[in-house]
Amino acid sequence: MPTMTPRTLSGFMELLPAPQQQMERIMSVLRETYSLYGFTPLDTPIIESSEVLLAKGGGETEKQIYRFQKGDADLSLRFDLTVPLAKYVALHYNELTFPFRRYQIGKVYRGERAQRGRFREFYQADIDVIGDGKLSILNEAEIPAIIYRVFSRLGLKRFQIRVNNRKILNGFYALLGASERSGDIMRTVDKLDKIGPEKVALLLKEDLGLDAETADEILRFIGIQGSNETVLNALGQYQGKNETFDEGLAELKTVVRYLKDFGVPEENFAVDLTIARGLDYYTGTVYETTLLDHPEIGSVCSGGRYDNLAEYYTDRQLPGAGISIGLTRLFYVLGEQGMLNPELPTAPADVLILPMTDDLSSAIAFATRLRDNGIRAMLHGEQKKFKQKISYADKLRIPYVCFLGEDELKDGVVSCKDMTSGEQTRLEPDATIYRIKAGLAELEKGNVILER
Amino acid sequence: MPTMTPRTLSGFMELLPAPQQQMERIMSVLRETYSLYGFTPLDTPIIESSEVLLAKGGGETEKQIYRFQKGDADLSLRFDLTVPLAKYVALHYNELTFPFRRYQIGKVYRGERAQRGRFREFYQADIDVIGDGKLSILNEAEIPAIIYRVFSRLGLKRFQIRVNNRKILNGFYALLGASERSGDIMRTVDKLDKIGPEKVALLLKEDLGLDAETADEILRFIGIQGSNETVLNALGQYQGKNETFDEGLAELKTVVRYLKDFGVPEENFAVDLTIARGLDYYTGTVYETTLLDHPEIGSVCSGGRYDNLAEYYTDRQLPGAGISIGLTRLFYVLGEQGMLNPELPTAPADVLILPMTDDLSSAIAFATRLRDNGIRAMLHGEQKKFKQKISYADKLRIPYVCFLGEDELKDGVVSCKDMTSGEQTRLEPDATIYRIKAGLAELEKGNVILER
Repeated sequence: MPTMTPRTLSGFMELLPAPQQQMERIMSVLRETYSLYGFTPLDTPIIESSEVLLAKGGGETEKQIYRFQKGDADLSLRFDLTVPLAKYVALHYNELTFPFRRYQIGKVYRGERAQRGRFREFYQADIDVIGDGKLSILNEAEIPAIIYRVFSRLGLKRFQIRVNNRKILNGFYALLGASERSGDIMRTVDKLDKIGPEKVALLLKEDLGLDAETADEILRFIGIQGSNETVLNALGQYQGKNETFDEGLAELKTVVRYLKDFGVPEENFAVDLTIARGLDYYTGTVYETTLLDHPEIGSVCSGGRYDNLAEYYTDRQLPGAGISIGLTRLFYVLGEQGMLNPELPTAPADVLILPMTDDLSSAIAFATRLRDNGIRAMLHGEQKKFKQKISYADKLRIPYVCFLGEDELKDGVVSCKDMTSGEQTRLEPDATIYRIKAGLAELEKGNVILER
Repeated sequence: MPTMTPRTLSGFMELLPAPQQQMERIMSVLRETYSLYGFTPLDTPIIESSEVLLAKGGGETEKQIYRFQKGDADLSLRFDLTVPLAKYVALHYNELTFPFRRYQIGKVYRGERAQRGRFREFYQADIDVIGDGKLSILNEAEIPAIIYRVFSRLGLKRFQIRVNNRKILNGFYALLGASERSGDIMRTVDKLDKIGPEKVALLLKEDLGLDAETADEILRFIGIQGSNETVLNALGQYQGKNETFDEGLAELKTVVRYLKDFGVPEENFAVDLTIARGLDYYTGTVYETTLLDHPEIGSVCSGGRYDNLAEYYTDRQLPGAGISIGLTRLFYVLGEQGMLNPELPTAPADVLILPMTDDLSSAIAFATRLRDNGIRAMLHGEQKKFKQKISYADKLRIPYVCFLGEDELKDGVVSCKDMTSGEQTRLEPDATIYRIKAGLAELEKGNVILER
């Protein structure tokens, strides 16, 4: 007698087998691409000591943290992959070689208010390059180039990586004599997309107490738009007045130049002066990435350059640059928008083998042969009617079904049905395998993400 | 100023980059092999509602469970992958197709007493086949065949999958009139390897109150040893007296026959009457796997056949068969025993590119070309001395270093140093790539695990 109605907690993604296969494809593109750029995989605990994890203070996320006692220990679940990285690098400093490039794809936890499309357990997919004391700006261009490659390989075309530099913003606010308010100003300007320029102006004046002229100046500045060249040229008007500004502009120009060298097309990256990133620890280049047809979901991939990764754990200066994809949310949105390619195989196997004799040894031998050839084979040993077995392959969308009956065994052949075309062959095992391999290669064409 | 000495909780494995690469290799062999047998990947939340997770009662593990409140919710971290599977199958029953074959590699949590080689957060790597009402015995032979393939592909040779059948044991204890004590007897017999036959006999008599004759009979039974054929023949003497026993013996013979068909050599699997598995829910075939040179670490991979996966969540009978590798512990032991092949590449990249000119565009273009060819390339853009850059490649054990200076650019070539042989070439980019690819293929030869 069942004692309990099974359920999964709300805010926790649990996929059925077919979408899970799509998620695995995406993760495998991420792993492969990150690896191609010399990032090493890392895995850190999901649980950390609360005092370590919250050394910096959790900020706005602190309320959301899963924190609990186990025995005497005060423990917390990680809420991002950056704090564990800072801990890792500080703790293992002597055993690491810098620049240290790592990727990590892992679950993080935030007790957000449950609502559609918001998750309490979700994957982040991060890359970071950490230097020891110094770090070349080349990395700040390579990181968006990697994101361009990831998204392109997934099949996305209509996305834009928006790039800015915090030094440009800080320098500009210094020019206005508003340095002390720069944090507040950036947080207000960050709302531009959501509330529009008039409301931003109002907030700048009423909430932050800026005078009308300064507010206008800020709006004019963040109103600079156009091609990357146009924006960079327009920024020239502020040059030579503030060192930080000039430094930021030079960096931004370098990043834009390298992005071209990396082969990122101009339509996929844009200098955007409204990008600031809320977090205080970014100090130079910052990124956000939007899906052009879905601006409402906000940035799906954000990051930037920081000067001090691990200041709460070590005296050493460890500057870095990194970016993070909110994978679970991205996957959810792609599913909702019908952008996951339904044509790509999601079956648990490439071939279903139906033994039609009592002695299973030939069927087992053929299964082994398929597997030795890298073909995913499932043996169906159940006592069911033939029609039910075919329907099993059909439901799971297994592309090939092979039969081995007395006749086939006698003639040394395999009967094989292509479930897509309905075509059936009766060939020697090697010829059957050849045909299946060719067919599978066709099925594997196409990307995970489809744009309409 | 650092405010906190960073640390990782004891009982939580956190690997350095090189061993992490070895762990990734192992996981990728597991994923590939499981997939070849038609298992679909699954991912379930790490956090579940406590009443769902503990519906069955946690048994001995209940004290070890990470359980906590978040708001009004009573939550627990999963302590294995079987209970989440039961929940998943019961919850999504109508959307699944049976037999349902899934693999899952994921972290589980048990607050064990901290000691060397024991982990509180560890990976399990599970496969299970779940039937709807019925399930063919073929699966009970295929599962150890998969484990044989996994371990062989990892490079292990000296391992043994030990197979038994609970029906044989239950039938035998019924013959002795000791059915009611069979659970206690099996738990006692399970200690045979650790405490020896005399102590087992003593416990059977003193703790369980069996008479001397019964205890002797049990010891004689579990003393049946030898080749699989010898053991199966010896079991014949008990045949025809108890239906359950006969059923179990027939099943065991079938499993042994199929295991041969699957190509599992006799030295890697043994019928072993002392194997019972502590857990009550196994009802037929049971498995344990030992490393022959390290019997002291116990079973590294265990499982079996069960009749009712999800009885706490549903009225439907869902029989299954499965096995679980304790991956973190296995990895730890392999490391301790020096069995992880140090020759296999663990570098974050295959090639380190050193630009020797101020203009980086050629270096970036060459990096892109390598990556397009599937070669993991790292660009080194830091301002360092040449010697330091070479030493960087050396420390990370990156096998190739490519230089692009003015001369190379002028001549349209790349200088490339093989860091293993010291040999340096100066070839056109395509020829360089060809050479690197051939060299990498050589380096990739060999298995993750080395036996001495």
